[in-house]
Amino acid sequence: MTPPSSPLTSPRSDRVKAVRALSRRSVREKTGRFLVEGPQSVREVVRHRPELVVDLYLTSDAVTRYGEVVDSARAAGLHVHEVSAEVLGAMSETPTPQGLAAVCRVPSASLEDVLAARPRLLVLLTHVRDPGNAGTVIRGADAAGADAVLVSDASVDVLSPKVVRSTAGSLFHLPVVTGLPVEGTIGRLREAGIRVLAADGAGTVLLPEVDLAPAHAWVMGNEAWGLEESVRDGCDEVVRVPIHGKAESLNLAMAATVCLYASAAAQRG
Amino acid sequence: MTPPSSPLTSPRSDRVKAVRALSRRSVREKTGRFLVEGPQSVREVVRHRPELVVDLYLTSDAVTRYGEVVDSARAAGLHVHEVSAEVLGAMSETPTPQGLAAVCRVPSASLEDVLAARPRLLVLLTHVRDPGNAGTVIRGADAAGADAVLVSDASVDVLSPKVVRSTAGSLFHLPVVTGLPVEGTIGRLREAGIRVLAADGAGTVLLPEVDLAPAHAWVMGNEAWGLEESVRDGCDEVVRVPIHGKAESLNLAMAATVCLYASAAAQRG
Repeated sequence: MTPPSSPLTSPRSDRVKAVRALSRRSVREKTGRFLVEGPQSVREVVRHRPELVVDLYLTSDAVTRYGEVVDSARAAGLHVHEVSAEVLGAMSETPTPQGLAAVCRVPSASLEDVLAARPRLLVLLTHVRDPGNAGTVIRGADAAGADAVLVSDASVDVLSPKVVRSTAGSLFHLPVVTGLPVEGTIGRLREAGIRVLAADGAGTVLLPEVDLAPAHAWVMGNEAWGLEESVRDGCDEVVRVPIHGKAESLNLAMAATVCLYASAAAQRG
Repeated sequence: MTPPSSPLTSPRSDRVKAVRALSRRSVREKTGRFLVEGPQSVREVVRHRPELVVDLYLTSDAVTRYGEVVDSARAAGLHVHEVSAEVLGAMSETPTPQGLAAVCRVPSASLEDVLAARPRLLVLLTHVRDPGNAGTVIRGADAAGADAVLVSDASVDVLSPKVVRSTAGSLFHLPVVTGLPVEGTIGRLREAGIRVLAADGAGTVLLPEVDLAPAHAWVMGNEAWGLEESVRDGCDEVVRVPIHGKAESLNLAMAATVCLYASAAAQRG
């Protein structure tokens, strides 16, 4: 085990407090750091985005249990620290961080970088407020092979612990661009030749009727009230997932996954 | 307002305690009653299954706010009781029951009834333990137009408050048969000429390759470990939702919704 770069034996140390403070959005924004917790997310950031990892903290149990994560981290030259369960517990607001957590740099990704890579399938989240929904949509976008996820300035912070956890590592698999103004982004997508499809229960076009082969972006709105009229009006089509039974609607994450897999089927056959 | 059939002014009354006890599975099984909370679920049970409603409880605020629910309930001859927020709060474990709750009879549905109706699309949940997942799958099955949801004896109780809430009313839109033995049920489905498709990340056949036009049932397994080998072996096909990106998997509810919408597209065009 690499010796810790500073003694980390007290749960009341300044360093532990600084890690815990990353549960606050203002601190994440000020420091440009966020916390990644649990085996799945930590494994994925170490594997796919090791350049983001500032410090990796593990209990001795976790060192034994997740040896392959420690090996990958060491191979990537990362700072690996063995700490007590008490210290790790004090770093996180989560009751059971399962023995490992990583302080990471906030990934930087820009809309221009995403567009330069000529994307075929994108998702734009607007006013999505529930962390679980946002994380699940990012995971679904990853699974469906989307090129990036774009997140509006009025949405939940995707670097909050709950969102990070619910992406199940997908946050580190594809570019996630945050803080975008909705209407300007829709305009920019259309200029780039990307069809912009609003997914909304108020849509007039049914999902199976839409040609999903050309490059397009799905715009997903708030869990409760959907998309604002001004946003819908800026899109090429407003598309509705058909409801065949008596359900009023699908939830956001389910609707997003159905739309994204319909896109994948059309683009990949 | 119909006068209450017995005074209901004390949150410590026996009647309030009896309602609250319905949060326990053993009490639900013994009494054959369960509690439905919140405007969406209560509205849907009153609208679609009024014969199940034993008593409807509302605060005076809720009587004003959800007037159409009260009107439907009265039109159906249901027992409607106006209670204080304190009494309603004591009936439920939910912190914010939003002013209305209904004590309902456990719906009875049998596999034989379901099969007699010549179903085209079914879901069988086995070992599903997370209430939110179970509820979301029932909601997705409803939206995709499935004919019924079958639930194994080793799954979460679909009449628990969390499952009821997460079905968003779908529990009252289609038959949900519970307590079924998994292997016997798969055998019975196949005898009835229904193809049985296991949905599993270990599947060898990809979803877009399966002919979903004939009548079939999707078998969904545990969130963490999927389907038991003996269950997979009893199915006609083990089908995998393709993962196009780097995600390890989809969660259960997302995978179920993608499968069910693929079925709906194949069967309904």
